[in-house]
Amino acid sequence: MKKVGIVMGSASDMPVVKKAIDMLASLDIPYEVHVYSAHRTPDEASDFSLNAKGRGFGVIIAAAGMAAHLAGVVASRTTLPVIGIPCKSTNLDGLDALLATVQMPTGIPVATVAIDGAGNAALLAAEILALSDEALAKRLEDKRRADTEAVLAKNKEIESQYNV
Amino acid sequence: MKKVGIVMGSASDMPVVKKAIDMLASLDIPYEVHVYSAHRTPDEASDFSLNAKGRGFGVIIAAAGMAAHLAGVVASRTTLPVIGIPCKSTNLDGLDALLATVQMPTGIPVATVAIDGAGNAALLAAEILALSDEALAKRLEDKRRADTEAVLAKNKEIESQYNV
Amino acid sequence: MKKVGIVMGSASDMPVVKKAIDMLASLDIPYEVHVYSAHRTPDEASDFSLNAKGRGFGVIIAAAGMAAHLAGVVASRTTLPVIGIPCKSTNLDGLDALLATVQMPTGIPVATVAIDGAGNAALLAAEILALSDEALAKRLEDKRRADTEAVLAKNKEIESQYNV
Amino acid sequence: MKKVGIVMGSASDMPVVKKAIDMLASLDIPYEVHVYSAHRTPDEASDFSLNAKGRGFGVIIAAAGMAAHLAGVVASRTTLPVIGIPCKSTNLDGLDALLATVQMPTGIPVATVAIDGAGNAALLAAEILALSDEALAKRLEDKRRADTEAVLAKNKEIESQYNV
Amino acid sequence: MKKVGIVMGSASDMPVVKKAIDMLASLDIPYEVHVYSAHRTPDEASDFSLNAKGRGFGVIIAAAGMAAHLAGVVASRTTLPVIGIPCKSTNLDGLDALLATVQMPTGIPVATVAIDGAGNAALLAAEILALSDEALAKRLEDKRRADTEAVLAKNKEIESQYNV
Amino acid sequence: MKKVGIVMGSASDMPVVKKAIDMLASLDIPYEVHVYSAHRTPDEASDFSLNAKGRGFGVIIAAAGMAAHLAGVVASRTTLPVIGIPCKSTNLDGLDALLATVQMPTGIPVATVAIDGAGNAALLAAEILALSDEALAKRLEDKRRADTEAVLAKNKEIESQYNV
Amino acid sequence: MKKVGIVMGSASDMPVVKKAIDMLASLDIPYEVHVYSAHRTPDEASDFSLNAKGRGFGVIIAAAGMAAHLAGVVASRTTLPVIGIPCKSTNLDGLDALLATVQMPTGIPVATVAIDGAGNAALLAAEILALSDEALAKRLEDKRRADTEAVLAKNKEIESQYNV
Amino acid sequence: MKKVGIVMGSASDMPVVKKAIDMLASLDIPYEVHVYSAHRTPDEASDFSLNAKGRGFGVIIAAAGMAAHLAGVVASRTTLPVIGIPCKSTNLDGLDALLATVQMPTGIPVATVAIDGAGNAALLAAEILALSDEALAKRLEDKRRADTEAVLAKNKEIESQYNV
Repeated sequence: MKKVGIVMGSASDMPVVKKAIDMLASLDIPYEVHVYSAHRTPDEASDFSLNAKGRGFGVIIAAAGMAAHLAGVVASRTTLPVIGIPCKSTNLDGLDALLATVQMPTGIPVATVAIDGAGNAALLAAEILALSDEALAKRLEDKRRADTEAVLAKNKEIESQYNV
Repeated sequence: MKKVGIVMGSASDMPVVKKAIDMLASLDIPYEVHVYSAHRTPDEASDFSLNAKGRGFGVIIAAAGMAAHLAGVVASRTTLPVIGIPCKSTNLDGLDALLATVQMPTGIPVATVAIDGAGNAALLAAEILALSDEALAKRLEDKRRADTEAVLAKNKEIESQYNV
Repeated sequence: MKKVGIVMGSASDMPVVKKAIDMLASLDIPYEVHVYSAHRTPDEASDFSLNAKGRGFGVIIAAAGMAAHLAGVVASRTTLPVIGIPCKSTNLDGLDALLATVQMPTGIPVATVAIDGAGNAALLAAEILALSDEALAKRLEDKRRADTEAVLAKNKEIESQYNV
Repeated sequence: MKKVGIVMGSASDMPVVKKAIDMLASLDIPYEVHVYSAHRTPDEASDFSLNAKGRGFGVIIAAAGMAAHLAGVVASRTTLPVIGIPCKSTNLDGLDALLATVQMPTGIPVATVAIDGAGNAALLAAEILALSDEALAKRLEDKRRADTEAVLAKNKEIESQYNV
Repeated sequence: MKKVGIVMGSASDMPVVKKAIDMLASLDIPYEVHVYSAHRTPDEASDFSLNAKGRGFGVIIAAAGMAAHLAGVVASRTTLPVIGIPCKSTNLDGLDALLATVQMPTGIPVATVAIDGAGNAALLAAEILALSDEALAKRLEDKRRADTEAVLAKNKEIESQYNV
Repeated sequence: MKKVGIVMGSASDMPVVKKAIDMLASLDIPYEVHVYSAHRTPDEASDFSLNAKGRGFGVIIAAAGMAAHLAGVVASRTTLPVIGIPCKSTNLDGLDALLATVQMPTGIPVATVAIDGAGNAALLAAEILALSDEALAKRLEDKRRADTEAVLAKNKEIESQYNV
Repeated sequence: MKKVGIVMGSASDMPVVKKAIDMLASLDIPYEVHVYSAHRTPDEASDFSLNAKGRGFGVIIAAAGMAAHLAGVVASRTTLPVIGIPCKSTNLDGLDALLATVQMPTGIPVATVAIDGAGNAALLAAEILALSDEALAKRLEDKRRADTEAVLAKNKEIESQYNV
Repeated sequence: MKKVGIVMGSASDMPVVKKAIDMLASLDIPYEVHVYSAHRTPDEASDFSLNAKGRGFGVIIAAAGMAAHLAGVVASRTTLPVIGIPCKSTNLDGLDALLATVQMPTGIPVATVAIDGAGNAALLAAEILALSDEALAKRLEDKRRADTEAVLAKNKEIESQYNV
């Protein structure tokens, strides 16, 4: 299976990114994690992206906050699908990172998920890889069913408590 | 090659969606276009999504405005990658559609592009399908290069006019 | 009397929803509580809504956060009045849920109350049911008067403290 | 059948309000229309609301822009359900009216619809009145079905044009 | 001297309003404090405003949060100058109260101060009353000078610490 | 009677400011109009404000757009009441001017009206001056009544057209 | 004198950028203009920035819209001062470009001016270059004085028209 | 070397401003710190700015919150480059200060950095001064390299932990 590359703009994004790592691991998807800043390590961010396809990556997830340029910078150097996670920082509740990630001009798409939505970034990567991996597709459907059942279990619990 | 399914919440979204259709056509990617409203035709939207994988679709693009639920409704019925285009409507400049599309809860991802960003939605679909189609990957890289050259041509034009 | 159906997108919305439950109970209005996610349990959410009228419900209250599609999904499956409570989640202070709940396109209305405004959702349901239940109408008017008197009592307390 | 009272804060709101009037007429629901400003005619707005129930109204729709207080002022004088239409004015794209209408404190609910969402205000009023009027309930379901068919017709038209 | 009337929509606004009370007291300006809700005690809010001029008030300060209608309701019942304090509540950081207070339609002005800006509301009331009270005008100028000196003292302290 | 000083940050604000001038003229209130930029003519803005009280002004109205500092600059140089009109400019719909005008720190109040709300700025100035001018107070009450009657006339017109 | 480098992300930004060019020309400051997209021509944008100091540039002005990464990308490749102009595009009134330009993380500053504020970008560049060029400093002061006089002339015109 | 002047609108801005002071100190750049309020000490703020050039300053950094006028007031009195730091205060997450600092009208530029972005304000001042100070330019490049290495060290740490 192709690998998922995870890059984050700062090690301080790790608490968010960790949710993506855990989700990928739970789905048996191989991944690599890197800290590359679009601004402080532009060469490394660029090299990683240029070489990603050749090195066996299928999808890249990029997480960054504030004027979150990382996903766009990565996307400008590869035609692999790039998923952007806008990270909330101290101010503005993540709105700056959301707009800086999602409002890409035509030509260089970034698949943006919710603010701090690292779990969904991993699921989206999984859905993409599952297009050519039926076993993974099945694991995704199993997970979907498990999620449904978890909600229904909660529902039962609350029904038994309130609907008397 | 797998097909791209395009659904829009209202026929009035066509001027935006047209940019996605044209981009897919220019990349020789097969597609189908439908008008399914999350709210006015929930059965059809649901059925289309449930059957999409079996009918040979690889990616679904969903475009909607205002309280834009369509991409989420589609995504809840398939584990195919779903791309959401938030469409600007009369008020709020598309911010309502952006937030209603991108802020999905963990479990059901929607790959969101810019407000009215239909061209990028198509490119993202192409990047996803290109993972298992080297010929398409090459067309994407050609397009990327052509975009670069178009910017450089514009640059030359403006340089010759202003840098004397 | 017709029942009020309360659905929430996630059990984590319970602290907000509890205020609606308590308000309905205090007004002697029968209700049922369910956890149905628009995305993780679309079938159950849909079935509940399709059958609501037949099962004796008069109003449905739907509470959800982020890209809050639940109220819209419920409303698309019934012509009963649907009241939406936009729930604040970690980021954006509930603005995402508010816009995703209130900005419904023409055809499928959702009666939206304030962010986390579960008490008013219950009162609105009560006002609707009271149209054909004079005893409930009287309880609502009593409550209104009690609210007025509570403010006036507070006023008296503050007047006696500050206006000397 | 109970009547729907429509009040608007200014005659300049008429182009928006007209959509509610037309929708009510198309559903054979009796209505009355008034221009009462929360601020320039507080007595008339108050008297209308205090007497609404006695005069045979079942629901009140209030439309206003900017610091849109009208729905709240009406709601403070009646326990009938009050539906608020936030109207866009010259600046801020209706966000001021939306927040001033929807963010009501606990005790006095306003059922808020989308910015300029007058059609849905009328449909919501109809849904409320239909709870005790099966003929109206049937007309609402017919309209819902007609809306569905209109979308499907549009879908067919676009399918035939694009899916070749 | 004319009195300042202070009304707040809820006793929970007292921590904010207290800053206005303290400022008025420090300037020897007579005042009265009341809790009148625009929605839960519309009669009392209205009566207070209608009678304010006759009862010797010169300015009214109204503090409220969320869909903050109180200042507008008061202003609709008097031609005395009305000062609005938008109070921050749990969500939206006071933006709802700010817009609901400041965006008044032509005809009924509300002099709006910053979110939770109760100190400035009192100072503004003082400036208004000082137009016909030279002793108060002098106290205001003294306060202004004292504020200046307080900043300069802080400046000296920080200069001595950092500019070595 | 004391005069009202009107300053605007740019002559391009004149279409907005004109509404204030006309309102003052209609109420027989003397005024002076000036173009003083907080940034391009800081000395003149400052001198005007410092001398305003001595020159017979009772209230100053300051209109400015974008980073609207004019009202604050004027207010920092006088203890006369200062009314700020946030003017909409090309972008951001006046939100920048609103926040830059209303969010004054404690010590220097600015009485802020709605975006482009010049008519209300003049009415607020009139209400302030009317505290010591009963004839003006009467003209204000007459105007208030005329406004009420204008709404009621519109109401009658619309009632006769729609309530048949 | 060192040159000012002007880069824009798209030739469509030219109407905004033209104001910077004209301002620099009017101050006799040498400049070069280029179209380099952060995403479509990352190599050229990077090379230009890396070589800017060696090629005699003293300041770089970067103009871009939407997810405006250009100024940040340039700044990541040089320690010359970089001035960012957030350009308004079709939606969101330039707020996306503003946040994507100004919210840079510590380490890589971008001197941001107003949305579409190209004139000020040029003036800021001039102020920077004037630190080591007294003749330019004098031209800047002359311009400042001319701006003051232009406001005062407008003031005289309006005074003569309105203050009679 | 020319000095950097740091002014803050209130001593309460010190925790933010301290980051600028520390950055300047770490780069061996001389500075002076002052507390001057645009509104409470307009004379001192004005005098400092008018005399800044003559007293050997090369750049001025101005930090302020809420209706943050300080940077604009300073900039109106000097043609030295002025850098504005919008400071977050209790409400609105710094959006008020950002817009009040960055949205300057043409003629008086303010180089705005991120909300609370004091470190970058100092770096920007350093970049400006380094244009005529090669030793400082070298220190800036050293710092840039050190930042890069710090990110790469973090990267190595995280790679060794997660990429096994």
